[in-house]
Amino acid sequence: MELSYKTEDAVVLASGGQDSTTCLAWAKKQFNKVHAISFFYGQKHSVETEIAQDICNAMGISLKTVDISFIKDIVISNLFQGTADVNCCHFQNKDVPSSFVPYRNLLFLTVAAGWAGTVGAKHLVTGVCETDYSGYADCRDVFIKSAQVALNLATDFKDNNVIIHTPLMWLTKAEEFRMAEEFGVLDLILKKTLTCYNGIQTMNDFGMGCTECPSCRLRKRGYDEFMKKYHSGDSNAK
Amino acid sequence: MELSYKTEDAVVLASGGQDSTTCLAWAKKQFNKVHAISFFYGQKHSVETEIAQDICNAMGISLKTVDISFIKDIVISNLFQGTADVNCCHFQNKDVPSSFVPYRNLLFLTVAAGWAGTVGAKHLVTGVCETDYSGYADCRDVFIKSAQVALNLATDFKDNNVIIHTPLMWLTKAEEFRMAEEFGVLDLILKKTLTCYNGIQTMNDFGMGCTECPSCRLRKRGYDEFMKKYHSGDSNAK
Repeated sequence: MELSYKTEDAVVLASGGQDSTTCLAWAKKQFNKVHAISFFYGQKHSVETEIAQDICNAMGISLKTVDISFIKDIVISNLFQGTADVNCCHFQNKDVPSSFVPYRNLLFLTVAAGWAGTVGAKHLVTGVCETDYSGYADCRDVFIKSAQVALNLATDFKDNNVIIHTPLMWLTKAEEFRMAEEFGVLDLILKKTLTCYNGIQTMNDFGMGCTECPSCRLRKRGYDEFMKKYHSGDSNAK
Repeated sequence: MELSYKTEDAVVLASGGQDSTTCLAWAKKQFNKVHAISFFYGQKHSVETEIAQDICNAMGISLKTVDISFIKDIVISNLFQGTADVNCCHFQNKDVPSSFVPYRNLLFLTVAAGWAGTVGAKHLVTGVCETDYSGYADCRDVFIKSAQVALNLATDFKDNNVIIHTPLMWLTKAEEFRMAEEFGVLDLILKKTLTCYNGIQTMNDFGMGCTECPSCRLRKRGYDEFMKKYHSGDSNAK
């Protein structure tokens, strides 16, 4: 079934990682034209924005990169350059990882909504996921829904309300790999994307980064499960 | 009655105008310590941030100025420097003035909430007002409420949820002048604040700017009403 919004445009939040790259591929199937937006915000791995550019180039998608590194001076997080790489809790809440950047996703979505209005897109797509939720409150479905409400009450643009799509919200990592395969971007994801907390793009054939940080372990476990479930083999079979 | 949150700190959004200056005075009475934050976002009247600094100095309040002028490159508004000063409607909605900056207040509140977390304040104060609502959706009470929900779902900081106060939301301009008088800042407001769309700080004894733009007319009418209601005279009596 072809959805009516196939004629409409979308802005996808791109970070050079597996999740956003899968979203770019998903959005290309769903919408008329896809515009990507990425953010430089003083994150340790500034190579993220370059990788996002490479991926967009490979997929034929135009990318807008926005420098919002002023937030380094506003909120506290050890994700920023020059901060210690201590794996403890955030100073504002002991249940939250120290890498948490308060209000980051609300900031991203607000700027993306602004850009969407300017390029004439009414859809936003973000790769947040509640399934592998690890204390980042702004990846939860309930936050995304509230952000959509706030964005639309901020403008009252009526027929031009923005709609936020989160195609990965309830998927496991294995299902996400399967989605990428169906959309023909599995290879691009394995070879190009950066998900590693240590900023290592590829150290092996499966693009699994450092293989040791929580994000790399999650990705490896998801890939193994994907291979087992959909290809009746193990990850070494690739 | 002294409220329990008298021991807590607040961040006040300051713009150098009448509304935010009244809020600063209100907040000084309500909270332990008041922190001000102002934004440079490429607005035509960049003198706003200097005036905000003067006002904070006069009131003994520390001010954080944040440069978010990247938004000039994201959203469209004729409030930005270098744009035409046409008094027509916004390209995204004909019912909205062309000076509307989409998502501006959501951006301000998000950054202010980040700063509040960093300085240990849980209260935000903004001078938005629905009484003289002129097509700016993000001045409405319903938007502010939704923003508070989105901000708190973005962090899930529990006991450290932010609370947004809007002391002017339902006041007339005359009542706002009265509030300023009660808090001892009427003179400061008349002599120092900038509300004029044409960027004119004072052209007469009453600090009424250009006297001709919609904002100056609103201010003058409010002042006359204030004088009549609370001082049984006319504005020339001052």
